[in-house]
Amino acid sequence: MRDAFHDDLNSIGQTLIDMSRRVSRAMELATTALLEADLQLAEQIISDDDVIDVMQHELDAKTLNLLARQQPVAGDLRTLVTSLRMSADLERMGDMTHHIAKIARMRYPAKAVPEELASTIEDMGKIAKGIIDKTTHVIESHDLQLAVELEKDDDEMDKLHRKLFLTLLDDAWPHGIETAIDMTLLGRYYERCADHAVSVARRVYFLVTGEFASERN
Amino acid sequence: MRDAFHDDLNSIGQTLIDMSRRVSRAMELATTALLEADLQLAEQIISDDDVIDVMQHELDAKTLNLLARQQPVAGDLRTLVTSLRMSADLERMGDMTHHIAKIARMRYPAKAVPEELASTIEDMGKIAKGIIDKTTHVIESHDLQLAVELEKDDDEMDKLHRKLFLTLLDDAWPHGIETAIDMTLLGRYYERCADHAVSVARRVYFLVTGEFASERN
Repeated sequence: MRDAFHDDLNSIGQTLIDMSRRVSRAMELATTALLEADLQLAEQIISDDDVIDVMQHELDAKTLNLLARQQPVAGDLRTLVTSLRMSADLERMGDMTHHIAKIARMRYPAKAVPEELASTIEDMGKIAKGIIDKTTHVIESHDLQLAVELEKDDDEMDKLHRKLFLTLLDDAWPHGIETAIDMTLLGRYYERCADHAVSVARRVYFLVTGEFASERN
Repeated sequence: MRDAFHDDLNSIGQTLIDMSRRVSRAMELATTALLEADLQLAEQIISDDDVIDVMQHELDAKTLNLLARQQPVAGDLRTLVTSLRMSADLERMGDMTHHIAKIARMRYPAKAVPEELASTIEDMGKIAKGIIDKTTHVIESHDLQLAVELEKDDDEMDKLHRKLFLTLLDDAWPHGIETAIDMTLLGRYYERCADHAVSVARRVYFLVTGEFASERN
């Protein structure tokens, strides 16, 4: 009985890793769809987000079922409760890639991102994907050093976010309000996606140590 | 032993109600601070958000402790797990009021919201507070009819959100990029706060019925 239970715990961990990998890929593709005005790619990401939602529902159902049937204690209980929280973060990260792809689709055949901001958005996409990939590794390896490092990567994201606003607020900004709205929302989507990834890594930290990593808002 | 446990469950429910009331009040005050450029009020909401964060941390610690010590089954287990999720939503709703107050503070002594949008933002604040108040009542009463009604209120919020964008995109918009960015972010904060409140009500629905209310993204 216990062995089957630990198989189930392992499979929950594996699903979290799969979700995180899928979100990383969606983030990469969403940024490409956005920068290259690739409608087909954007559509694909928008429909693939359902897959992530379904993964979360199934994972949570399985987790709740194990909580109910096995009445786990200590570390196993913490694993299951943390899994519920991580899956919620990962689902929300998937939503962010979906939102990014929707902006690409809305502005097609034009490129949503003007030339001046293409490299900033590209960098935000890279940093976001980098943070998600490290988060995947943290889920897989429980590498707490890496979990702490992620906070620094998130600072890089905040810097890019400020840079984006400075570009928008430059008197020479020639692209009008609509593009400024798109860029404001995009900035927020990339930043929130990174925030959720950092939150997942913090939950792994809690899982392993029973303590919260220092949180900075 | 069981009686003490059910006292604990009741106190968790009461804390969720207290959190929701506190968020409702913060939403009302944040909107006032924003529309009236009231710096003192904005500062108060910004510092009060810590109180909501602390309530969440303490509530979750208590919930995790009960999960670990009591190994609850069936309905009690569902109550505890749902409580963890509701507290996360409520904490995030508090963050949104904090973000709104920060925009009020950033633009002080000017009013962040220009005259053309004051009534739209005022309405968004009212709808948000109305949704939060109904959510509080749903947590308290487990009134599923009201939980379903909330979805309609959320549609009203979406309408106001679209109205806000239309005003920004009007060729006659005279307030420039900075104000457009502020309004874009404000629109998102109100909308997200309402979304989280609807999510709390959905969780109560799940708690009572064991089934998910139909979700619309």
